[in-house]
Amino acid sequence: MSEAAFIKALLAPLTLGLPEADNLLNDAAVLPAQSQAHYVVTTDTLAAGVHFIGNEEPRYLAQKALRVNLSDLAAMGATPLYYLLNLSLPHTLAEQPAWLENFVQGLKLDQRFFGISLLGGDTITTSSPLQIGITAIGTVDGGNTLLRRTAKAGDALYVSGTIGDACVGMQELKQQSNPQTRAAMRYLLPDPRLELGRALVGLANAAMDVSDGLLLDVQRLASASGLQAVINVDSIPIAEDVAAGGSTWKSLAVAGDDYELLWAMPHDLAPALHRKVAGLDTKLTHIGYLETGEGLRLVDKQGQAVALPSTLGYQHL
Amino acid sequence: MSEAAFIKALLAPLTLGLPEADNLLNDAAVLPAQSQAHYVVTTDTLAAGVHFIGNEEPRYLAQKALRVNLSDLAAMGATPLYYLLNLSLPHTLAEQPAWLENFVQGLKLDQRFFGISLLGGDTITTSSPLQIGITAIGTVDGGNTLLRRTAKAGDALYVSGTIGDACVGMQELKQQSNPQTRAAMRYLLPDPRLELGRALVGLANAAMDVSDGLLLDVQRLASASGLQAVINVDSIPIAEDVAAGGSTWKSLAVAGDDYELLWAMPHDLAPALHRKVAGLDTKLTHIGYLETGEGLRLVDKQGQAVALPSTLGYQHL
Repeated sequence: MSEAAFIKALLAPLTLGLPEADNLLNDAAVLPAQSQAHYVVTTDTLAAGVHFIGNEEPRYLAQKALRVNLSDLAAMGATPLYYLLNLSLPHTLAEQPAWLENFVQGLKLDQRFFGISLLGGDTITTSSPLQIGITAIGTVDGGNTLLRRTAKAGDALYVSGTIGDACVGMQELKQQSNPQTRAAMRYLLPDPRLELGRALVGLANAAMDVSDGLLLDVQRLASASGLQAVINVDSIPIAEDVAAGGSTWKSLAVAGDDYELLWAMPHDLAPALHRKVAGLDTKLTHIGYLETGEGLRLVDKQGQAVALPSTLGYQHL
Repeated sequence: MSEAAFIKALLAPLTLGLPEADNLLNDAAVLPAQSQAHYVVTTDTLAAGVHFIGNEEPRYLAQKALRVNLSDLAAMGATPLYYLLNLSLPHTLAEQPAWLENFVQGLKLDQRFFGISLLGGDTITTSSPLQIGITAIGTVDGGNTLLRRTAKAGDALYVSGTIGDACVGMQELKQQSNPQTRAAMRYLLPDPRLELGRALVGLANAAMDVSDGLLLDVQRLASASGLQAVINVDSIPIAEDVAAGGSTWKSLAVAGDDYELLWAMPHDLAPALHRKVAGLDTKLTHIGYLETGEGLRLVDKQGQAVALPSTLGYQHL
């Protein structure tokens, strides 16, 4: 498939005819002026061998690349609108139309699911393994975004969903090609918490997404706000199937790929939040609080100090 | 250098304290609402071995990655404001603080030169050679952008600067590490034609940047507008030093990396354009015209048909 054919036959239809993408004919895309709402922009690259195993079905790779970026928009309380795709294809994949079609099928599925469309991007071929860069663009009303640095001492800390599923799922996927378990699906297809993110606007003082390990990300939120975090390790939400497999918080809370939301909120707003998200099937768990100081302290359910693991999460450098 | 230190010490200062970047503390950046102007967004990835040789000074790589994206904004008639950086570092470079500092120095220099600032991004380490992704964001007044598909039959075709310098410069750079020639500098540091792009708004019917080979890009502009292009090969602007080295249009007009502008405009508007860009030291050359039909025809200065080269430019797939 030629570059021109790939763009025209497979990518241009993903713009859904939106004038801002102009069928991918131009050097750049033009965003409509918004007098009230603000655009929110984020970008993340996934690389084979780092963020995915490499034997996944191509459509899952496309969907995961989109979803990890949508998770960043969720953390800001934004609604996604568009994305740009930077595809660095190894020559071997570029020569496989079926691979390209399956990949684009993943984009198409998630475009429909999340109500977004392709705006532009860039495709190159290299001798390196696959890298997928996504730049996601969303919108927030009146600049009402969730930040990391605005948590207050005394805020309770919450996390959505369950922690460490993806880490267990990845191990399963490395051992067998198609394990079909809940944990494996959590690794392949993270679920960006967009509705929850929007519900947190006006209630949470600070928020972020959990992608590099719960403990590391808790420490980052506390640090951005100039506070110390205290986490009750016995309250970290662990799925039953994962716990049954023998995993404990010590490995799960320092593993990446959760794509859950972490937020700081006065504890007395919890009932209001639960009312707001009553229709969502998302578990919300109170895992600790913020106090003056810096760093991260762990306690157990009796309030006894617990030693910090030597590594709190995944760091790229 | 840890990921946190890299972000805090080297990258966060590149945001120049702009509130929209919030010191890179959050999951995404927030763009101010613009009631009249439109945002313009483009993204391009440069990979070692494909877009650069690999022995270049790191700051040149940073500058080139920025500039090829600014060239896309120039082609739309936009003024650049911000960029996001997706850095895929090989482990070997990630462990060299001097390399990272030199790279960031390049970003800093060009930020100052072009009046832009860092908004966000993503840094990963892999076992692959370096890849640098830039997403550039600019602004245009009232959506008055230059497109490719709006050229008209009878429009004259123009190109800025000289063609093929970078191709010659790349050969020189491959042969000796520091040739210090004009052509080598044209390869290392393309000059995005931002002022020219803005001047073309209201005069040109269509425009694009020339990055994959003049002939291929002429064909793309003609095709987007549903027209045929006719190029006088004897009028293609070739720099004296490049011509003296023995290169001819046959190799230069199909080579990539020019980052010049190509535009379609009624010929009688040329004096108005020359007045508008009188202060710019940029050569503007009339190289052909558009007519009804499709594809590309080449002629010489006597109007005799010239055979098309077998390859018109660089295609990634």
